[in-house]
Amino acid sequence: MLNQPSSPATPVPHVLLVECPDRRGLVHEITGVLLRHHCNVTSNHEFVDVEGNRFFMRTEFTGEVDAASVVNETKQLLPEGGNARLAQHGKRRVVLLASREHHCLADLLVRHAFDELNAELLAVISNHDTLRPFVEKFGIPFHHVSHEGKSREDHEAAVMALLDTLNPEWLVLAKYMRVLSTRFVTAYARRMVNIHHSFLPAFVGAKPYQQAFERGVKVIGATAHFVTEQLDEGPIILQQVIPVDHTHSAADMAQAGRDVEQIVLSRALKLVFEDRVFLSGNRTIIFD
Amino acid sequence: MLNQPSSPATPVPHVLLVECPDRRGLVHEITGVLLRHHCNVTSNHEFVDVEGNRFFMRTEFTGEVDAASVVNETKQLLPEGGNARLAQHGKRRVVLLASREHHCLADLLVRHAFDELNAELLAVISNHDTLRPFVEKFGIPFHHVSHEGKSREDHEAAVMALLDTLNPEWLVLAKYMRVLSTRFVTAYARRMVNIHHSFLPAFVGAKPYQQAFERGVKVIGATAHFVTEQLDEGPIILQQVIPVDHTHSAADMAQAGRDVEQIVLSRALKLVFEDRVFLSGNRTIIFD
Amino acid sequence: MLNQPSSPATPVPHVLLVECPDRRGLVHEITGVLLRHHCNVTSNHEFVDVEGNRFFMRTEFTGEVDAASVVNETKQLLPEGGNARLAQHGKRRVVLLASREHHCLADLLVRHAFDELNAELLAVISNHDTLRPFVEKFGIPFHHVSHEGKSREDHEAAVMALLDTLNPEWLVLAKYMRVLSTRFVTAYARRMVNIHHSFLPAFVGAKPYQQAFERGVKVIGATAHFVTEQLDEGPIILQQVIPVDHTHSAADMAQAGRDVEQIVLSRALKLVFEDRVFLSGNRTIIFD
Amino acid sequence: MLNQPSSPATPVPHVLLVECPDRRGLVHEITGVLLRHHCNVTSNHEFVDVEGNRFFMRTEFTGEVDAASVVNETKQLLPEGGNARLAQHGKRRVVLLASREHHCLADLLVRHAFDELNAELLAVISNHDTLRPFVEKFGIPFHHVSHEGKSREDHEAAVMALLDTLNPEWLVLAKYMRVLSTRFVTAYARRMVNIHHSFLPAFVGAKPYQQAFERGVKVIGATAHFVTEQLDEGPIILQQVIPVDHTHSAADMAQAGRDVEQIVLSRALKLVFEDRVFLSGNRTIIFD
Repeated sequence: MLNQPSSPATPVPHVLLVECPDRRGLVHEITGVLLRHHCNVTSNHEFVDVEGNRFFMRTEFTGEVDAASVVNETKQLLPEGGNARLAQHGKRRVVLLASREHHCLADLLVRHAFDELNAELLAVISNHDTLRPFVEKFGIPFHHVSHEGKSREDHEAAVMALLDTLNPEWLVLAKYMRVLSTRFVTAYARRMVNIHHSFLPAFVGAKPYQQAFERGVKVIGATAHFVTEQLDEGPIILQQVIPVDHTHSAADMAQAGRDVEQIVLSRALKLVFEDRVFLSGNRTIIFD
Repeated sequence: MLNQPSSPATPVPHVLLVECPDRRGLVHEITGVLLRHHCNVTSNHEFVDVEGNRFFMRTEFTGEVDAASVVNETKQLLPEGGNARLAQHGKRRVVLLASREHHCLADLLVRHAFDELNAELLAVISNHDTLRPFVEKFGIPFHHVSHEGKSREDHEAAVMALLDTLNPEWLVLAKYMRVLSTRFVTAYARRMVNIHHSFLPAFVGAKPYQQAFERGVKVIGATAHFVTEQLDEGPIILQQVIPVDHTHSAADMAQAGRDVEQIVLSRALKLVFEDRVFLSGNRTIIFD
Repeated sequence: MLNQPSSPATPVPHVLLVECPDRRGLVHEITGVLLRHHCNVTSNHEFVDVEGNRFFMRTEFTGEVDAASVVNETKQLLPEGGNARLAQHGKRRVVLLASREHHCLADLLVRHAFDELNAELLAVISNHDTLRPFVEKFGIPFHHVSHEGKSREDHEAAVMALLDTLNPEWLVLAKYMRVLSTRFVTAYARRMVNIHHSFLPAFVGAKPYQQAFERGVKVIGATAHFVTEQLDEGPIILQQVIPVDHTHSAADMAQAGRDVEQIVLSRALKLVFEDRVFLSGNRTIIFD
Repeated sequence: MLNQPSSPATPVPHVLLVECPDRRGLVHEITGVLLRHHCNVTSNHEFVDVEGNRFFMRTEFTGEVDAASVVNETKQLLPEGGNARLAQHGKRRVVLLASREHHCLADLLVRHAFDELNAELLAVISNHDTLRPFVEKFGIPFHHVSHEGKSREDHEAAVMALLDTLNPEWLVLAKYMRVLSTRFVTAYARRMVNIHHSFLPAFVGAKPYQQAFERGVKVIGATAHFVTEQLDEGPIILQQVIPVDHTHSAADMAQAGRDVEQIVLSRALKLVFEDRVFLSGNRTIIFD
């Protein structure tokens, strides 16, 4: 990793993450715990999802603090079904899954190289060998697990076996063009982020950009989302669009799609790896 | 209409509109016609839809010109299946269809009052009487054609009878919340513009903003499109989005939707009423 | 005012607004007050401006509550130099100042007519009589205070005398094209919102759109800001841009400017009139 | 360079670039030349800068054509002061100048690696050695020309001597943080592209993001422009903004600035290196 030191004097803050059924007094009581421990709160967000009656809180604090006790005392005052934890210090352990397209992958490799992602990239796994030379420039292990001549089941088993040895906290589908089985998705549900081309209106099926071109869409979008058992229906982290017009061919629209996918995935991962994203049912609460 | 005179000295240009199957030499030959007639070209756009092999051209010109001859000579050199015409001078004759929501309607009434639309609003027709006082402020006739106690067929027949007397060139569905029959749509196909809430991804069925909220979308969009026999599948004129986040309730998202609908519909109509929009299959070619 | 009733059953919440020098424990103590009074908090935002060491809080709550006591008890626990207050119920009393351009004014009149602004428009004052018929359609008093044949001082004195009789809480400069004296600005500092065309880079002096055209800018923006003694240097509430290109004439850029000004001013006022905007030095804190 | 072959069958089109004082009949006559030579026009743009009375045309054509004759015949029919040329085949020869910031540089290196830029990167020259390991990963020569202990004049002379040996067509200032002398600028005027942080309103002087923070701006922008003798006043190629709010520190705003700079510079260079950008006085005409 290239050295791009952040300002060395800043103490790394603790990040307290709380979610629970909402009830009156939670903020008062949790801030009471923080006060008693002389925490120096540097950033604080709460949100109540009124429909789901669920409370979310993310608090950064510094100081010579017994953080474990802060968490324990917070836990004790939460209603049943709630949880409190400290975000781990150190980087998230991440594996990227890719196929042949480089755009999202390259952006993540660069950001990782300059330490902008709060992530340690353990490896790239791909069902094609195309991107190996590029990935290896960055000193990241590249694993080619070909799907050719293998059943879907066997190929996925090979990928999962490799993942078992790597033991990542997060999987990122950086244009991984394989349909995942329920078994795979379940194993990594809510720990897997996907980037999805998505249009206004959304086009399903093959050749989405050809469809978009034929309908003459005027914006091209991308959606970063958690993968859940419902695949593309998982909670949305980030969406963005860029404008196109009739002078754009289907190929131009695909290029626009790649550009916006790259931006959206990188920003979404930054949010996730800094523990700024909570799940509330099928929605995300984002403390940006 | 309030007087907001445009600079009076500018001569109103002729607008020549051409579309035909593409073949080599069209631009050369059409510009030849314009030259021979000493037209002073002040704006010119061409575009070839390569997939559809179709040529489009929009040329503004001024001068003491026999415009009818320009058109006739142009027509004669076009391949079979082509057409040339002059955009009519004067404003487009337009009827607005609305229901109870005011946002799109109000924006159009204001722009019309200050002569920004190149349109004469002949009337507003609504299946509710709610917006009458607002519309009548602007001196525009308001026709309440209630759907209550009527079959869909009878209600639509009443609207169509009224339209027959008004004889508009264009219909604008400014949040008209009635499903139109094939008969109605066919009568006004390609002469009717609709504004459609549309999301990334698109949500169908009732309560789209509730669905959008539940999925936690991060952008809210709107699409202005021509209505064809396929209803919401018609060629897209304009699309735009605005960002939302988890702090937006379903009601907030609906408000954001109204804001973007209003902007998109007004801009789309300005393009249409200035003859800047061509249809190419299910796409629009827009010479902005 | 046209009736567009909001859902009648929703109780109007109290809005507690707090700002003070930051110190440890504020959130805990203020939420303690709210708890003791059995307030039902429906929305809560805090923010610490670290550079200015200043704490801001906006809390909506409902319930059968002695709101005056909530405020008094909150005040007592704040550090010196702090303040707490309840946002007034009812609409903000607002006067609009305009000249000859209608776009911002018209949008505000429409939103007011449909009760979307949390404002009562007391009057429009203009140095031209041009917009009178449009304003009077909406039943809003229109005062023409001509500047012709008057010194700047005398004209301003006439406007201020009129304002004294109207006694507004807020002034909105909706494209009021007069330079204001320090005396005027001081009288309404921080209670006056202006909409400013502003570019990347900003162009000063006459004919800004001509300058923008000559530099070939690619975006046109607008800034809504509070007016302070530094005139155009006051705290920014909202900024937005729209793209333009070389096909846009200076007149087209001016039209784009009007469109974005209208959007930005309306959104900014909605934020201000709902007490969502705090001032922190020359910055705004916006609890959206 | 990594291989990412474009579809091999597509013939590389010729690109005819014309600019001249406007006069009647130009399009007709130039298309006449193209017709006589049996050129197959695949894309065509013209634009008349009415204020400057200047005509611009960019035409892509394929076919077994004597392209040199097309150019010569076109030249002969142009008014005095006009010019026609074929865009060169092959990539533009480019040198990047950088300092210590990696974001723009890295994005260009990645796009170059996947052959998305129509450019051959000859070298990176920097006044710091910081980015050497990153640049060399990509197999691009890195030249450290330190400014320490050197007069501005001597440092610039060293850079210019190096440039003489490299002989680039284009220089890109990818966050090169040195003020250039008139001598340097003159030598590369209109062949040098710079990326400039720029705000609404623009902040001059040191620490622009600190200034932006203190004013509480709500959008952060970037401008890619040609460098002329007027340095930051050169013709604008592309501008874009991203939204920020009060929760963004000056450091966060700087990060937002880096993100938008990277996007804007890459897109601007793509346009320039595909000969889609004409200069008209201090404006750019962009045939996108």
